[in-house]
Amino acid sequence: MQEFIALANSMADIAGEIIKKYYRKPFNIDKKEDNSPVTVADLEVEQALREFLAKHRPDDGIYGEEYNPIPSKSGLTWVIDPIDGTKSFMIGRPTFGTLIALCDGDTPKLGILDQPILKERWLGIDGLPTTMNGKSVQTRKCDSIDKACIGATTPMMFDKLSEYDRAYEIFECGTSNMVWGGDCYMYGLIASGFMDVAFEQNLSPYDFAALVPIITGAGGHISDWRGDPLTLKSAGKVLALGDPNLWSEISYMILKSPY
Amino acid sequence: MQEFIALANSMADIAGEIIKKYYRKPFNIDKKEDNSPVTVADLEVEQALREFLAKHRPDDGIYGEEYNPIPSKSGLTWVIDPIDGTKSFMIGRPTFGTLIALCDGDTPKLGILDQPILKERWLGIDGLPTTMNGKSVQTRKCDSIDKACIGATTPMMFDKLSEYDRAYEIFECGTSNMVWGGDCYMYGLIASGFMDVAFEQNLSPYDFAALVPIITGAGGHISDWRGDPLTLKSAGKVLALGDPNLWSEISYMILKSPY
Repeated sequence: MQEFIALANSMADIAGEIIKKYYRKPFNIDKKEDNSPVTVADLEVEQALREFLAKHRPDDGIYGEEYNPIPSKSGLTWVIDPIDGTKSFMIGRPTFGTLIALCDGDTPKLGILDQPILKERWLGIDGLPTTMNGKSVQTRKCDSIDKACIGATTPMMFDKLSEYDRAYEIFECGTSNMVWGGDCYMYGLIASGFMDVAFEQNLSPYDFAALVPIITGAGGHISDWRGDPLTLKSAGKVLALGDPNLWSEISYMILKSPY
Repeated sequence: MQEFIALANSMADIAGEIIKKYYRKPFNIDKKEDNSPVTVADLEVEQALREFLAKHRPDDGIYGEEYNPIPSKSGLTWVIDPIDGTKSFMIGRPTFGTLIALCDGDTPKLGILDQPILKERWLGIDGLPTTMNGKSVQTRKCDSIDKACIGATTPMMFDKLSEYDRAYEIFECGTSNMVWGGDCYMYGLIASGFMDVAFEQNLSPYDFAALVPIITGAGGHISDWRGDPLTLKSAGKVLALGDPNLWSEISYMILKSPY
C-alpha cells in the first residue's frame, strides 16, 4: 500500500500545481453534453494524471470525469475527479477539490481529497485512520438529526422540485444548520468532525469513490441511501454521517418515502 | 473619511482575532428566536465592536445583528454583522465574513467585508475604487445572463417552494453555472471579477449595507429587485451584478412576475 499512497500523493501534487496556475485567472470554459461547465484546468489535470499513470501503472484501469475509461488489466482502477466543484473553482472559491481513489475491483480502498489553495489534503486508506495533512482526524458525535449540521451541494441535484421537496424534509430537521454549496470539501469537514451529515444524489463514482475510505477511516458512515456500501456500480445517492448512530433516525426518514 | 477607514479597519482586525480563536474549535451554539444559530463568537465579536465604538464614536448609532440598536446622535450609524455566514463558520468553511458598514442617515458610505481565515479584506468607499487587501479590484463584463455565474446562499431564503420556483427561473438561465452557499463572500468574488450575479432575499440591512459601496466602487450594480438603491430601510431583496448592463435582461425576468 505504501507504493500506492506515494503515487496518489504525487498525483495530488501534480493536480494542485496545475490548478494553482489557473485559479482566479481568466480561462476558457466549455459546456459538456449535460450542459455542465468544464474548464481547461479540469482537462489539463486529468490529462496529466493519465500520463502519470500510463508511465507508473500501465496495467491499472482509469475512470475519470473528463475522458473515456481505460479498462483495468491488473484488477485495480484509479478513479479521478480532476476538479470536484468546478463551479466553485470558476468563481474563485476554494471549496473545490481533486478527488483520487484507488479501487480494487469496484471497491474503493484508498482516497485522497486535496484542496490545493487552502493546502489541505485528506487521505483515507481501507482499515487505517484517516489523516488530514498527515494528522489523524475523527468525525464527531451527534446524537440527533435536529442538532446536525447537514450539507448538500445544490438543490438542483434533486431532479425535480418534487424530489427537492422530499429531500427538504430531511434538510428541514437540521434546516437551521443546513449548509449549501458543499462540494467534496464538506466530506473533508465531516471527516474532521466539523459537520455531521451530507445527503446528495446524482453523483458519479468519481465524485464519491475517494470519500469512502476518508469517511470510514475517520469513524463515520458512508453508503447509498439504502445503507448499501458505495462501489463503482452505485447509483449516486450518497449519505455520509459523522456519527454512524444517526443512521437509524435518518434511514427511517429516507425509507418512509420509497425511491 | 480617513478617520472612518482607520476605525473600520481596526474593527475588522478586532473581529478577526476573536473569530480565529474559535474557528474549528468546539464552541457553544444557541438558537435565536427565528431558529437560526448564533455562536459565542458572533456575540463576542459584536460586543467587542460595540465597546470599541462606545469609546471612539460615542455619538454614532449602532445597528448590529445580535444586540439592540443604539440610535444615532451624530447622523452616522455603524451597521455590523459580526459573522455573516454563521453556518459556514460553524462547519469550519472559510466563506463567512465580518461585515462593517458606516451609514450617513440610511445610506451606506463605507463597507468592509473581512474574511479573517483567508486574510482577504474588501473595502468600499462611496466614490472611490474598491480595494481587496489594498489593491483596486474591478467587476468583470458579462454580456448575457446565460453566461453568468449566479449565486445565492440557500434556496431556503426563498420563503416557500413557490417563491423558490420563481427564483429558479432566473437561476435556470445560468443554472449550469449556479453556485450555492454564497454568504457575503460571493459579493467579494463579484467585486473582484470572478462571478457575475447574486440574487437573494430575506436579507437584513447588516447583511447588505457593507456590500453597497464594495460592489458599486468595483464598477458593479447593487440594488433591490426593483432597481432601487439599498438603504437601511430596504426590504431585503438584493440583486448584485458585476456588469451593470445585465440589469435590463434580469429586471425583465424579475418584473414579469410581480412581487
